[in-house]
Amino acid sequence: MWRVRDRMGVTGELQRTVGQNLRKYRQERQLSQEELAEVLGVHRTYMGGVERGERNLTLQSVERIATRLGIDPRELFEKG
Amino acid sequence: MWRVRDRMGVTGELQRTVGQNLRKYRQERQLSQEELAEVLGVHRTYMGGVERGERNLTLQSVERIATRLGIDPRELFEKG
Repeated sequence: MWRVRDRMGVTGELQRTVGQNLRKYRQERQLSQEELAEVLGVHRTYMGGVERGERNLTLQSVERIATRLGIDPRELFEKG
Repeated sequence: MWRVRDRMGVTGELQRTVGQNLRKYRQERQLSQEELAEVLGVHRTYMGGVERGERNLTLQSVERIATRLGIDPRELFEKG
């Protein structure tokens, strides 16, 4: 799928990968977005946006999510 | 060194690791902070803050930096 690179070469690949890994994590545990949002202490709609790769997360947000899930933040950056 | 975890378990480890890896990248190439800042198209003082791990970068900023340096963003997250 062709990705629009902004003029600085950013495609949003990292945030999409984090979203895909979170969705995988959630589905492996048969959790709904609502349930995972509750685990993470965020709103369900925010959760949906993160999973779809629409949110330009900060490093601290990624760290916070990983800490809540008990995983190393780098696992969220692993390519599928 | 004891790290203050904020109430959500964030220590800022990721941003410190990115800063350390950028500093390593820069020193390996005998570049000054000013020169690397110019390569990245950012101000020198911003560069210093990133290297010291003081800036809670977004994923797109990390992607932009990595693209400019011609490396995979994940290399910036590798532990020393």
